[in-house]
Amino acid sequence: MIAIDNLQLNAQGQLQHFLSIEGLNRELLTEILDTAESFADLSAQNIKKTPLLRGKTIVNLFFENSTRTRATFELAAARLSADVMSMNIATSATSKGESLLDTIRNLEAMQVDMFVVRHALSGAAHFIAQHTAPHISVVNAGDGQHEHPTQAMLDMFTIRRVKKQFSNLRVAIIGDILHSRVARSQIHALTLLGVEEIRVIAPKTLLPTGIEDLGVNVFYDLQTGLKDIDVIIMLRLQKERMNSAFLPNEREYFKCFGLSAERLKIANKGAMVMHPGPINRGVEIASEVADGEQSVILQQVSYGIPVRMAVMSMVMNHTNGVG
Amino acid sequence: MIAIDNLQLNAQGQLQHFLSIEGLNRELLTEILDTAESFADLSAQNIKKTPLLRGKTIVNLFFENSTRTRATFELAAARLSADVMSMNIATSATSKGESLLDTIRNLEAMQVDMFVVRHALSGAAHFIAQHTAPHISVVNAGDGQHEHPTQAMLDMFTIRRVKKQFSNLRVAIIGDILHSRVARSQIHALTLLGVEEIRVIAPKTLLPTGIEDLGVNVFYDLQTGLKDIDVIIMLRLQKERMNSAFLPNEREYFKCFGLSAERLKIANKGAMVMHPGPINRGVEIASEVADGEQSVILQQVSYGIPVRMAVMSMVMNHTNGVG
Amino acid sequence: MIAIDNLQLNAQGQLQHFLSIEGLNRELLTEILDTAESFADLSAQNIKKTPLLRGKTIVNLFFENSTRTRATFELAAARLSADVMSMNIATSATSKGESLLDTIRNLEAMQVDMFVVRHALSGAAHFIAQHTAPHISVVNAGDGQHEHPTQAMLDMFTIRRVKKQFSNLRVAIIGDILHSRVARSQIHALTLLGVEEIRVIAPKTLLPTGIEDLGVNVFYDLQTGLKDIDVIIMLRLQKERMNSAFLPNEREYFKCFGLSAERLKIANKGAMVMHPGPINRGVEIASEVADGEQSVILQQVSYGIPVRMAVMSMVMNHTNGVG
Repeated sequence: MIAIDNLQLNAQGQLQHFLSIEGLNRELLTEILDTAESFADLSAQNIKKTPLLRGKTIVNLFFENSTRTRATFELAAARLSADVMSMNIATSATSKGESLLDTIRNLEAMQVDMFVVRHALSGAAHFIAQHTAPHISVVNAGDGQHEHPTQAMLDMFTIRRVKKQFSNLRVAIIGDILHSRVARSQIHALTLLGVEEIRVIAPKTLLPTGIEDLGVNVFYDLQTGLKDIDVIIMLRLQKERMNSAFLPNEREYFKCFGLSAERLKIANKGAMVMHPGPINRGVEIASEVADGEQSVILQQVSYGIPVRMAVMSMVMNHTNGVG
Repeated sequence: MIAIDNLQLNAQGQLQHFLSIEGLNRELLTEILDTAESFADLSAQNIKKTPLLRGKTIVNLFFENSTRTRATFELAAARLSADVMSMNIATSATSKGESLLDTIRNLEAMQVDMFVVRHALSGAAHFIAQHTAPHISVVNAGDGQHEHPTQAMLDMFTIRRVKKQFSNLRVAIIGDILHSRVARSQIHALTLLGVEEIRVIAPKTLLPTGIEDLGVNVFYDLQTGLKDIDVIIMLRLQKERMNSAFLPNEREYFKCFGLSAERLKIANKGAMVMHPGPINRGVEIASEVADGEQSVILQQVSYGIPVRMAVMSMVMNHTNGVG
Repeated sequence: MIAIDNLQLNAQGQLQHFLSIEGLNRELLTEILDTAESFADLSAQNIKKTPLLRGKTIVNLFFENSTRTRATFELAAARLSADVMSMNIATSATSKGESLLDTIRNLEAMQVDMFVVRHALSGAAHFIAQHTAPHISVVNAGDGQHEHPTQAMLDMFTIRRVKKQFSNLRVAIIGDILHSRVARSQIHALTLLGVEEIRVIAPKTLLPTGIEDLGVNVFYDLQTGLKDIDVIIMLRLQKERMNSAFLPNEREYFKCFGLSAERLKIANKGAMVMHPGPINRGVEIASEVADGEQSVILQQVSYGIPVRMAVMSMVMNHTNGVG
């Protein structure tokens, strides 16, 4: 795994691809957060554009549908003045029987500069980064149940904006840890940034075996798990897993693991409530909590743009000498 | 209804949203037409762009399909140098069970500046304008059977270009008044701009009850209805209503309410023929009339762009201090 | 046919549309190749854009799906700084029963400057060019089994880059000549540019009758056909024709007409191997040949962009006085 993760960095230790939080270090994560700060200021201005990536071509390769993630990547690229081409690969070239590698080779030949990849298979972004031309950067927009590193970084950005530092924080990640690429990326990022404690809270059926090896504490119920917590990260519950071997029905789930206003009081005063969206109101989170004072769910969405601008400009900075 | 319509204007009476013609006044409509004039000149130039909305993000929220309207809004936004993101909402986020309000909240959080909304439900654009952040403008691109105000304004623009003034005009709107959001917007606009007479001509089954309350004269046959008319506005016939309780078959409809060359002669000499498109040749209008000298149908399409540029720049002018 | 082809040129013999290679002359093809050279240099630069078509609106009218061709046209237009609107016509306006001509008339009215047309019917681009407004240019991106002229020009560009001149070359086109619009355009282009010999190599069922009238030599087997050849152009085999009256199964086809490393040796030393893509590995071409030293398949993809930039800027140069 080391060899693959090192793919992300060049000989000088700069970001060349952005594939996973695993394999990065605290300095790099901090550099991303600091770079995102400057773009966050830009977003608040009347003209929200910078010419940083003018003349660059970014290809969104979405093998899996995603309105929100695709939208934020498109907006981030537009605000960096790049040209963006979004390709829904499921319905195009590969349907003519062309292999993934041939599709990549062909896009490469069109002098594109970056692939933003979302794929249902874990490792897909790594695979493309391993096989693409050296001047092209790959950004992972979610691969199977592996990682979703830009989501984790916007979560870190949100936490830092609200809590100022990481070292004194106790963070709880709640819900379907087993199937969540977001949770994996978050755990790696929180660990690298040095929070005091990371907890995962979930029913046993939604916890991967050996999760403790990542340095997290495991809780099976909210009552004890939420005690002393500063940051609550809810995960989205895939409804298609309901009424399966994994889970009882929605009402039962909310009763056991849903974040109600009552339960929120168990956590520390001023604990922040996060969710990657889209939320299932009344399933994993009560509406009054999602829309309440402690919720930063919409800030997370906002910060998705400067954080993705930061990642895209950093990988381009390395490979093409921008900036 | 007053309260809702006032949503469109700020305290200074400037356009903040563009939701319906109802609730506006003659001065504002005239300002839109005058602003559109300057953009119409731009369209004729070699470089058809102005940097007026550079750095602004416009989201096309089309819950209902529309090639032509979406295309003119996209072109209008591109010519104002805005960044445009078109979202087909029917097939995206809401299919994950996210509510309309959550979708809006999320897009808002991405620092977008304008929503152009088309929706099958009457009042959808108003609803979004009521619930969106104060710095965001909403433009109605057609809501159910309620209004389609940019279509009405491009019709007014076309009429003014050809006839120079409104006060001496007799206008007939012909066809499916009952289901037409275009007709409702046109009636309000023609009334505000002070034409001499508005007539609606339709079979009884395609006329809403109480339509006379809008100040129009009702005719049930073309022969008498077209007499002394200067402007003929044909409506598109939804073929799916054919052979239903509303309507006989197409041939029968054309025989009674279709605009033939013969019938056109009943109207005043030089009467202009309008249609919002797409036309059903031989159903509501004969090909020789649609393509004839008195037809301004393609001018209407052309003027759709400067009129939409005018509306978009005016609502942005208010909210973001552009210009 | 003369009258139709002359559509492409204005009274001064300049390109007004780009519909087919047939009907053009060597000077024009050479001008396209020379213009493409300047854009090829641009593509290698850090900022790959030129403001040449800023403010122009290009509409991609794709009545037939094509990831690769649409992508290269979109990228070419973006790098010329044009505004691009891609319309999938199959699923939009025409589904409301609007005729092709009405669709064209409406887009024209929106002050667009160019149509890039792909259509399953031979002659579709000509038809649109005949009926569109005089200031609009039409570029054929593939029409039925007729022509695919930009593909042929990028092939010529690739040949000239590698072989420097045309006059001493023997070129073989191999595969489904009968159904290939690419082959037709290539034969016309190679003839105009004056290669020494053009051969077509195919089973009898995949050769049109009278193909010799185009001045090509016909071979029914690779062993004799590849002798003395400098340029090998493989055609894509439409798998849907397999196991039909035209063709045996894939393995049998490769045995008879597939380009293996062994067979490549029959051709001249250094013979270049071309394919318009997407390739069917192991059907018309062996993977080791497609990925081998003599293959220029990915260069073809690369050169698609400068060649399309050249064609688009030349047709606009005529009609709108750019440059």
